[in-house]
Amino acid sequence: MRNIKLTLSYDGTDFAGWQTQPGFRTVQETLEQAIAKLTGEPRVRVNASGRTDTGVHAVGQVVNFRTTTVHSPEVIARAVNARLPADVVVRDAAEMPEAFDANRDAKRKLYRYVIHDGPVPSPFLRRYCTSSRHVLDVAAMRRAAEPLKGKHDFHSFETEWPNRKTSVRTITHLSVNRFGEYIWLDVEADGFLYNMVRSIAGTLMNVGRGHWHESQVAAILQAEDRIQAGPTAPASGLFLMRVSYER
Amino acid sequence: MRNIKLTLSYDGTDFAGWQTQPGFRTVQETLEQAIAKLTGEPRVRVNASGRTDTGVHAVGQVVNFRTTTVHSPEVIARAVNARLPADVVVRDAAEMPEAFDANRDAKRKLYRYVIHDGPVPSPFLRRYCTSSRHVLDVAAMRRAAEPLKGKHDFHSFETEWPNRKTSVRTITHLSVNRFGEYIWLDVEADGFLYNMVRSIAGTLMNVGRGHWHESQVAAILQAEDRIQAGPTAPASGLFLMRVSYER
Repeated sequence: MRNIKLTLSYDGTDFAGWQTQPGFRTVQETLEQAIAKLTGEPRVRVNASGRTDTGVHAVGQVVNFRTTTVHSPEVIARAVNARLPADVVVRDAAEMPEAFDANRDAKRKLYRYVIHDGPVPSPFLRRYCTSSRHVLDVAAMRRAAEPLKGKHDFHSFETEWPNRKTSVRTITHLSVNRFGEYIWLDVEADGFLYNMVRSIAGTLMNVGRGHWHESQVAAILQAEDRIQAGPTAPASGLFLMRVSYER
Repeated sequence: MRNIKLTLSYDGTDFAGWQTQPGFRTVQETLEQAIAKLTGEPRVRVNASGRTDTGVHAVGQVVNFRTTTVHSPEVIARAVNARLPADVVVRDAAEMPEAFDANRDAKRKLYRYVIHDGPVPSPFLRRYCTSSRHVLDVAAMRRAAEPLKGKHDFHSFETEWPNRKTSVRTITHLSVNRFGEYIWLDVEADGFLYNMVRSIAGTLMNVGRGHWHESQVAAILQAEDRIQAGPTAPASGLFLMRVSYER
């Protein structure tokens, strides 16, 4: 069996997330059906770097799947795209060694959370950001986020499901930048807890609008208690940007 | 009666164009209902710089309407936005002299047509461009478009409905520029015929992919015959960018 890696972009707006669920339109099932139509194999199973939730977007989700098809990776990418709806595309396909596993081998992921804080939301970007009614203080958000960098127990920034053995993760990069009326919160880590980026975004938005003092983020982190953190920000602002496999 | 001018942006994807038609979701009716909810006036009628067709977007459509409401323009903008769906927004509101008419007084309009010619369409921009399967030669398109500048009979670039007294228009600005995998065709004129920008876009795309020689555009213009021009390019790529009222 060959082992093919695909890099995907999708607009999560009209998907009930990544993972197949009977009765819902999911990215996984949509992709598996498109591949099966090409290869003629009865049971195609794609293995993603991780699930994305309902409404969450991906610029660079990575998956792998096993196949006996003889098509080149270039032909697979083009032919699967021809069979996919317009809100999900294969950006790249590559032949991988037998052992490659898109989930297990992922070393780091980069997520971007996009916030709009201008007076008038754009009708063109409404699906791809969340709107803040308050103008946010990006410098305060950046200072507040500083204690999150590095290796910590992020239990305060996860929702309960699913229970994991440990809530310790390492944030390898965190930045908050303004581009006009848009703010990008970029978080790269060796792994993410459930709703972790959206909890961090909701917390930093509370700081940015002056509702919380910036020192509160460190206190929330130390509390290891979800109840302390800000609300989970909406899915529409979240993008899985990149999955890194090299150490 | 006061005379209020509004500048609007809308995502045309889910609208059956500007003009009210029974049984269809239109921008005009959506806006009139939002204004009526605010002012309580039984019959609100907005007068646009011009109609946009089904699926055509606007960054800066301009309308005016008469009202007896006492609210300031700023309050009108904010309150109408609170009553509008997310795919149409009021960007600006202004008090105008009694005589101002958004349609009759428009001196120039700028339209932008957006073409994507990369190998993989973006799931995030699919509503806001048209895709070309061929990589386009922008320099050839630019040279081909040169004869369209200035005052001409553009009968070759209009579809039949509605019949107008004259098909003579003046193109005051025309440019073709590439930004990575995206091409912007900008056309500013003192008025536009039905489907004029989309006919020009379809014609220049035929030149850009090498299907037609660039000299053919001048010949089509001279023919004054719609059958000669390229196909009408899809609505999704077209944006009404700006309406100018000063001479």
